[in-house]
Amino acid sequence: MGKVSSVSPFSPTSLAKLPPIDGVTFATAEAGIRYKKRTDLLLAVLAEGTTVAGVLTQSKTASAPVLLCRKHLRKGFARALVVNSGNANAFTGKKGREAVDLTVEHAAEAVGCKPYEVFVASTGVIGEPLDAGKFAHLLAGLAERAEPDAFEKAARAIMTTDTYPKLATRKAIIGETEVTINGFCKGAGMIAPDMATMLSFIFTDAALPADVLQDLVSEHVQTTFNCMTVDGDTSTSDTCLLFATGAAAARGQKAITKVGSKKLRDFSNALHDLMRDLAIQVAKDGEGLSKFVTFNVEGAKTWHAARKIALSCANSPILKTAIAGEDPNWGRVVMAVGKSGEAADRDKLTIWFGPYCVARNGERADDYDEKTVAAYMKNREIEIRIAVGVGKESATVWTCDLTHAYVSINADYRS
Amino acid sequence: MGKVSSVSPFSPTSLAKLPPIDGVTFATAEAGIRYKKRTDLLLAVLAEGTTVAGVLTQSKTASAPVLLCRKHLRKGFARALVVNSGNANAFTGKKGREAVDLTVEHAAEAVGCKPYEVFVASTGVIGEPLDAGKFAHLLAGLAERAEPDAFEKAARAIMTTDTYPKLATRKAIIGETEVTINGFCKGAGMIAPDMATMLSFIFTDAALPADVLQDLVSEHVQTTFNCMTVDGDTSTSDTCLLFATGAAAARGQKAITKVGSKKLRDFSNALHDLMRDLAIQVAKDGEGLSKFVTFNVEGAKTWHAARKIALSCANSPILKTAIAGEDPNWGRVVMAVGKSGEAADRDKLTIWFGPYCVARNGERADDYDEKTVAAYMKNREIEIRIAVGVGKESATVWTCDLTHAYVSINADYRS
Repeated sequence: MGKVSSVSPFSPTSLAKLPPIDGVTFATAEAGIRYKKRTDLLLAVLAEGTTVAGVLTQSKTASAPVLLCRKHLRKGFARALVVNSGNANAFTGKKGREAVDLTVEHAAEAVGCKPYEVFVASTGVIGEPLDAGKFAHLLAGLAERAEPDAFEKAARAIMTTDTYPKLATRKAIIGETEVTINGFCKGAGMIAPDMATMLSFIFTDAALPADVLQDLVSEHVQTTFNCMTVDGDTSTSDTCLLFATGAAAARGQKAITKVGSKKLRDFSNALHDLMRDLAIQVAKDGEGLSKFVTFNVEGAKTWHAARKIALSCANSPILKTAIAGEDPNWGRVVMAVGKSGEAADRDKLTIWFGPYCVARNGERADDYDEKTVAAYMKNREIEIRIAVGVGKESATVWTCDLTHAYVSINADYRS
Repeated sequence: MGKVSSVSPFSPTSLAKLPPIDGVTFATAEAGIRYKKRTDLLLAVLAEGTTVAGVLTQSKTASAPVLLCRKHLRKGFARALVVNSGNANAFTGKKGREAVDLTVEHAAEAVGCKPYEVFVASTGVIGEPLDAGKFAHLLAGLAERAEPDAFEKAARAIMTTDTYPKLATRKAIIGETEVTINGFCKGAGMIAPDMATMLSFIFTDAALPADVLQDLVSEHVQTTFNCMTVDGDTSTSDTCLLFATGAAAARGQKAITKVGSKKLRDFSNALHDLMRDLAIQVAKDGEGLSKFVTFNVEGAKTWHAARKIALSCANSPILKTAIAGEDPNWGRVVMAVGKSGEAADRDKLTIWFGPYCVARNGERADDYDEKTVAAYMKNREIEIRIAVGVGKESATVWTCDLTHAYVSINADYRS
């Protein structure tokens, strides 16, 4: 079996260093919502005129904060973001809405903005009423001491079973002006984003209207967060918000008003790259993982079909445990392709584990050498490529293996 | 955590005793295909005129034996069934077809029948070429010593990681004649039947044409095998065959020629009951299980929606590990309902663990007592009832929990 430790083997030796972004400040607090001796409350204060776009879970049992964000996104402006960890405020009925309302009220007063400019996200246990009284009174103090150079602190405050904070930064050029994009997010279980990852927040100083932001985030979430899974379990709280303070306008950034403007190409690429980076960081901190696994599916009829086949592999318990056992059991890849329901030509199916072709044209490759491929499986990062032989489209999905530690973490989560 | 042992805690203290069925005989052998010192080859010899119907996996990477059965089912007659364990003969290309052809040829000669009257099924490792030369020559000898009172022996020969054979028997009345239905099947991992369970064989002495049999088996498989899952991984080999020798005609059973005949009501009920019994036995021997779990979903718009919601729960790793941990984490039920994609009214959602209502109308039940429900979770059999509040249809799905032992079994399966 791959080695499992209390910290992900992919925990970075040094975290990405995020520069400040004009118009974005953070403060955190230990509110004691569930965790002891660590921060669990985050307030982000955003400059006047900040625009916002986002995507939220498609779960039919979405949390109270998700419903609030959905409503406030219609206006497209943001001045405050409040995030707590330790309690998801999901399936909490009327009490859940009241907790969100209390949070919005205090945040709006603390920051001096309209209620619809406040966004809220919560992560943690589902079904437990969230006592917003525990932290709403702290927001005024947080607003006073919010500081710009605090992305890492912010990322740490929203962690649950994550073993490291996920941070990423990129530069992009709009017209002739350089802008910055910073983002952070959290995993680490109940992760199979169906519109966004558990919680992901991205900030830029670019000056972009909300509809332009929405177009970008909606497009890129498909090939980044929505192509990543830990356990196939879509959370009630998935939230990905993109805030643009517009500070770059003062530095000469020309206004962009049109969705799909060619001037956005570099920004769009940088944003995609950053979202992909964060998604991979989540998979690399999947609960109890010993290995990071990439499934590349090619030769499918559509991108959607390729993604569905890759996800069928990435969510297969019997395949994920084989990978944990360092067993090159490619027969289970065949099974997962078959059960996906998408078109695949069994007699053209070809599979590679890393550089080694294990199956070609519907049967075991003639030159397959079990020892060589078994040695490859000892790697911490495993890449499985699958050609399904019916078309020209491809997709990539990132995931991790399924280990004893996943069972332990989730059997004991609340006790 | 629930206790896990090398044998399922649901292993029956005494196996069902199946009476002989006129026109059905069995012989088994130790062919050494993969397992040592146990039987791994089964030949069933069926009387002349035996009709057959069946359902097979919908996997796009179906095994060579599945393709053969699909072809032979069109004729509707059977004289021989050959089953081997230890190798699935799936994803074995031309060699796979040749292995099946060799088996059919020898079986037809041994029994004295047409090739299209031979049915073949294989279970075990995927992708490994099956050397039918190892056992085809044994079939003539098996045909000679086939005996009627051997259902248990037959069930044992087709086991893989099963810890006990799954057997069931029922009596039914057609017109004024009593007939017998016997069945056996195997699990125990890669089980999420998508048309039938891994391998399931049912025999009756009733005299029924193939189209009548097909109608019955197609109907009942939906609410029995297709409502059972171990790990959500649909096999390449799912096969459920129903053989009717017609011996009851000699005892006066009147001919039934019409699909849906009212005279079949008792037989249909008994068949459904037997298939349900076998499906539950498979779930109760799920790989590494410590608990048997039933999800009852009610108040859905359609039966299909109710089943999909129940399966979303039954296949959720994070919920199944919580159950293994004896944690009444009903928030994860909320998550699984939400991710199913089927209509559910979050604010009417009501959930029971056994007799205890844990959530009512979209939030934690007022009278919820964690200690009481945690004590309930110590039971070996857990029943979770979910009312989704949008309609009148219901469905039941059977499964087991996800334990360390599942990970161990599947990480080490081939080593």
